[in-house]
Amino acid sequence: MTSKAGPQAAIGDRRRVVICDVVPQVDGGEVSIKRVIGDSVNVEANIFADGHDELAFVLLYKRAGDSVWRESEMAGLGNDRWQGSFAVDEIGRWQYSIQAWIDRFGTWQERLKKLADAGQLSKDSLVTEFQFGAALVSDAAEEAECFAALGDSASESLPGADKGAIQLVEWAEMLVNPKERSEDQLALALSSELRQVVYQYQPRRFATTFGRELSVVVDRPLAKFAAWYEVFPRSCASKPGQHGTLADLIARLPLMADMGFDLVYLPPIHPIGMTGRKGRDGSLKAGVNDPGSPWAIGSKDGGHKSIHPQLGNFSDFRKLLLAADDLGLEIALDIALQCSPDHPYVREHPDWFVRRADGTFQTAENPPKKYEDIYQLDFESADVKALWHEVKSIFDFWINKGVRVFRVDNPHTKPLAFWRWLIERIKDKNPDVLFLSEAFTRPAMMHELAKAGFSLSYTYFTWRNTKSEVADYFTELNQGPAREYFRPSVWPNTPDILHAYLQEGGPGAFEARFILAATLAGNYGIFGSSFEMTQGQARSGNSEEYAHSEKYEIRNWDWDLTAGLRPLIAKVNGIRRDNQAFAAGGDLTFHRIDNDQLICYSRAALSNGVEDNAILVIVNIDSKSTQAGWTDLDKASLGLTQGEEFWVDDLLTGKSYQWTGARNFVELNPDHATAHIFRIRRLGVSPEAPAKSEPTARVGKN
Amino acid sequence: MTSKAGPQAAIGDRRRVVICDVVPQVDGGEVSIKRVIGDSVNVEANIFADGHDELAFVLLYKRAGDSVWRESEMAGLGNDRWQGSFAVDEIGRWQYSIQAWIDRFGTWQERLKKLADAGQLSKDSLVTEFQFGAALVSDAAEEAECFAALGDSASESLPGADKGAIQLVEWAEMLVNPKERSEDQLALALSSELRQVVYQYQPRRFATTFGRELSVVVDRPLAKFAAWYEVFPRSCASKPGQHGTLADLIARLPLMADMGFDLVYLPPIHPIGMTGRKGRDGSLKAGVNDPGSPWAIGSKDGGHKSIHPQLGNFSDFRKLLLAADDLGLEIALDIALQCSPDHPYVREHPDWFVRRADGTFQTAENPPKKYEDIYQLDFESADVKALWHEVKSIFDFWINKGVRVFRVDNPHTKPLAFWRWLIERIKDKNPDVLFLSEAFTRPAMMHELAKAGFSLSYTYFTWRNTKSEVADYFTELNQGPAREYFRPSVWPNTPDILHAYLQEGGPGAFEARFILAATLAGNYGIFGSSFEMTQGQARSGNSEEYAHSEKYEIRNWDWDLTAGLRPLIAKVNGIRRDNQAFAAGGDLTFHRIDNDQLICYSRAALSNGVEDNAILVIVNIDSKSTQAGWTDLDKASLGLTQGEEFWVDDLLTGKSYQWTGARNFVELNPDHATAHIFRIRRLGVSPEAPAKSEPTARVGKN
Repeated sequence: MTSKAGPQAAIGDRRRVVICDVVPQVDGGEVSIKRVIGDSVNVEANIFADGHDELAFVLLYKRAGDSVWRESEMAGLGNDRWQGSFAVDEIGRWQYSIQAWIDRFGTWQERLKKLADAGQLSKDSLVTEFQFGAALVSDAAEEAECFAALGDSASESLPGADKGAIQLVEWAEMLVNPKERSEDQLALALSSELRQVVYQYQPRRFATTFGRELSVVVDRPLAKFAAWYEVFPRSCASKPGQHGTLADLIARLPLMADMGFDLVYLPPIHPIGMTGRKGRDGSLKAGVNDPGSPWAIGSKDGGHKSIHPQLGNFSDFRKLLLAADDLGLEIALDIALQCSPDHPYVREHPDWFVRRADGTFQTAENPPKKYEDIYQLDFESADVKALWHEVKSIFDFWINKGVRVFRVDNPHTKPLAFWRWLIERIKDKNPDVLFLSEAFTRPAMMHELAKAGFSLSYTYFTWRNTKSEVADYFTELNQGPAREYFRPSVWPNTPDILHAYLQEGGPGAFEARFILAATLAGNYGIFGSSFEMTQGQARSGNSEEYAHSEKYEIRNWDWDLTAGLRPLIAKVNGIRRDNQAFAAGGDLTFHRIDNDQLICYSRAALSNGVEDNAILVIVNIDSKSTQAGWTDLDKASLGLTQGEEFWVDDLLTGKSYQWTGARNFVELNPDHATAHIFRIRRLGVSPEAPAKSEPTARVGKN
Repeated sequence: MTSKAGPQAAIGDRRRVVICDVVPQVDGGEVSIKRVIGDSVNVEANIFADGHDELAFVLLYKRAGDSVWRESEMAGLGNDRWQGSFAVDEIGRWQYSIQAWIDRFGTWQERLKKLADAGQLSKDSLVTEFQFGAALVSDAAEEAECFAALGDSASESLPGADKGAIQLVEWAEMLVNPKERSEDQLALALSSELRQVVYQYQPRRFATTFGRELSVVVDRPLAKFAAWYEVFPRSCASKPGQHGTLADLIARLPLMADMGFDLVYLPPIHPIGMTGRKGRDGSLKAGVNDPGSPWAIGSKDGGHKSIHPQLGNFSDFRKLLLAADDLGLEIALDIALQCSPDHPYVREHPDWFVRRADGTFQTAENPPKKYEDIYQLDFESADVKALWHEVKSIFDFWINKGVRVFRVDNPHTKPLAFWRWLIERIKDKNPDVLFLSEAFTRPAMMHELAKAGFSLSYTYFTWRNTKSEVADYFTELNQGPAREYFRPSVWPNTPDILHAYLQEGGPGAFEARFILAATLAGNYGIFGSSFEMTQGQARSGNSEEYAHSEKYEIRNWDWDLTAGLRPLIAKVNGIRRDNQAFAAGGDLTFHRIDNDQLICYSRAALSNGVEDNAILVIVNIDSKSTQAGWTDLDKASLGLTQGEEFWVDDLLTGKSYQWTGARNFVELNPDHATAHIFRIRRLGVSPEAPAKSEPTARVGKN
């Protein structure tokens, strides 16, 4: 046990200001919050002291590793609650804290004002008061001189400190000069100009700094807003039956770009083992031409740092990255920490694997399920340090090859301490690298993986199909405490999960799930062609496994952009990009609608009217029948006043409707449209410039 | 800044179990929770590991300072949430934490069971499996031998460890003995008996201990349940106009005991200063016979360690404590950290006081209000350490004289760091000492004072008079996070606060406020005789100050137990003691009643029926008129089933009514009764013994 409960209080502490209940703060500051470039971090705290003194405080923030804190002002919310914010404009780790102290000059000035108002100031007492005040002004003057002496060398030292110092010295002299009229002295003493300049330079006597340096990990915007496309390169061949290659994938990239995706993510591309290789539909006997599961990694051709020969070589891989980049796409790789019996590690490091009492290797299993084609790594191995280093070297290897986004397979079967260590070290050097946690397990583990550093996390969306399930889950994700560290990545399907809703619902079900995914979350993804082509056939009745799963065989697809859902996908991805309500992660609100088959929600990025962007989505989740209902809109959440008339423009069909109240009739016939995606259009919004507040900065002194 | 955000992850950590989201836990474990003797501490946490292994865990607890942890079992609540509890049976500080590790034997047994069920165990594989299991059993046997070797010297070492060791060795041999039939070996391997014994002794390989030792301060039951009575000893003389003495107070104690109070609390009993002494009603000029405010402490007769000569001497004080003790009463003293200009400290330690620029002493003020009779201590003084020590010595002085309960005046005008230091040190040596925080200020400070260690805290009750104010406030106090550390002490009046509701409401208002205070909170108090005699006259129209306040003059009261509210007070205090719903701090629930002048709530201590004690209180807060309404009872909170008939026995009048549903008619005429205090009486409850679960204990090993 490392820390004692309750810090021992030290005698004679003269820091009288208390700073507590600081938010955002996860697990007492042990866990970083997450933001992307361009976000601002809003910080609130209770700040107060004993007695009735005036306080001064600043929000401190800096890049981790910087020695100088930057500062921004805080504003009062009432009842000792204060708020400030800072913008994060670089990726990497930032830190923030709060510093506060007694504003002795302000306290003196407020007191003087009250005494003057109450007529309690005699000539004699004024002389004494001015002496006291002048001493405080002189203290500030001295500080200002120090700042001035820093000059240009400290780029953020207070501008005008030299002039400030001169001015303060003059004022201090005036307060105690017997030749001045006491009325003039009193006017000076009570002036807000004097207070403001003193405030800027006053010594921070007995200042309290919040006991923890809180931290925020800042990522690329992609971490908050991206559409993912999962594809098996081997399914990209132009001729049926052929094993596709990275070169074939390159030829397919324009299709993915045209659909508006940001990321193309590939299952493992490493050599596939022969021992225990699985056949079609996961059968125990592989046929001669069965390609095996890409997750059974490693063969005589190499392991996690090699490319499966049938896919191509590193030159092909480099071409793939370049081709993707030309199209505005990024390639994400899947890293699965498990080995085929033929993986070089098995021979070179037998101690890294789970073994039986007789020394033989234990194949992976979850009885009665068996995975004869893979061995499990042993994270309790005596040689575990070497194992950690080696795994890190796998990520480093692909980072050096140009990969910046990793989807990590089953991270919940490896220790959390390992992920914390790995991600911290990799992001320290490569803060642009992102990790997606593919953990479909119980909530506590999924949350701790996000806290351990995963940039993005798979969710339960795949199994949340009813109206209340969807509303409850997304409300929790958006409004619960996890919103500070858990970034949802939502998928209507994966190579492992073809939900019964899709198996039974036909094309309308695919449309509904696609629109929900793409409009409810900033990050969503689909397991490519089989989804677009609305393939709903499972291996068997109770199974979520695909029939003819691409995990075990090569498939060929119709690569025509006008086939299946592709036009809808392209349209919706365009709508996402064009609307700040989606692109900037606007607030999500669920609205009542009196039909359980209709889900109604909005995302809204509201500023001051002209830049407002509010989108109202209504989805019919009954893919078989027409459903109709009356909305009960929370108009405020759409940036609308109570009685205000407005237009809703359907971005899918181009049709517009004029609405007034909260109550509006909606009917969706799945043969024609599964959903409305309405942009709210206000009438008569006056075009004002958006109000902006820039925090002032000055040099920190701690 | 003392701590880094995010602990640096260390390489090669093989502790795979994660323990997080532990409750109760205040401010990341920095603040102790509070309990009293006899309470149990219920602890919950998320506990899980990567993969699918079985886990083992224990709740750890001990007295602070003990070297050996005690342990109790934890039970599953689902979704990786686990719960355990321990009873606190001694006052002082306790600590608690959680330890968890992979249950290797349990994991192996579960796996074996699944393989057996799936028919996946060949003869050969069985031999290997049994080898593996036998090794785990042998490991446990070795541990058991260690425990056995500790013998009687470690009083809590596992009983029967010697027998356990022998048994485990036998079982391990049987598992690998080729002469045994494999069916018998399998039956043994899968037996719950084997698992249980192994579980008890298994080595805690790579065990995780929660990173913080959480702490709980355990107080005497008085801290949770007590009725306080505030009295000025100088108002206790038998003849009008005379200055009462401690001896006079002794003569009045039986009255307070007969009313059922637990604590008699005295305003400061120290010498009162002459300089700036206030006259009647706080006037600036004191008359020759005006006794001054007891809060203007210090004169030529001494300071905080002296007794005002007109009250008596230390011999009288000792007699007072003894007399109180004989009556089951305890004496609480008020400690006010401020000094009259005549206090010895002013002469001896001028540096301890706030001074003006010209060196003169600053009298206390809150402009335009002035307190000419007191100087303020300066907690920014360069000599602050000596000041802290001296203040502590004041408390120590009275503790040595036998005082165990202190009411601290205006703690919010002294630094929180000081209180944390003072209370921690005093309670380390004298864990039976209690501190009541008299802070009537903003919520953040009131909460931080409770976190700093104050055992009890004044509340806003005095100003919460409407139905919704009362319900909202007590719901927050009972159900919000503060319930772990903030113990409310509720007062309908104080020497400083005579609320307009009492000024205007007449005797019925006093009755209503008394019953609310006494039944809504475990700790409540009244500022004595003026409350009992329903004195509602304020100094002036807008003032909450009493006319002829006892702060500035000597009053005389009718000391007849049958006068004013005294019979009601005695009855209600008796009801409080006789009913576990109050005495054990039963759950508080507000029930709907369709009249804003009627407040309806219950407290219930529910066990299994026969020991249930549920009290339903209905108070008419309109002291002038009859009010009637229909209840809408939450029957479950009263331990009643939906359709169940029950009796309500009014403990104030002795009358009983038979009720069935949630809806019942109630009418209260303030001329006859301000409130009902109903005890719920169920019909046909079967007398079962209450279920008890005792956690098992064993020796901790960390």
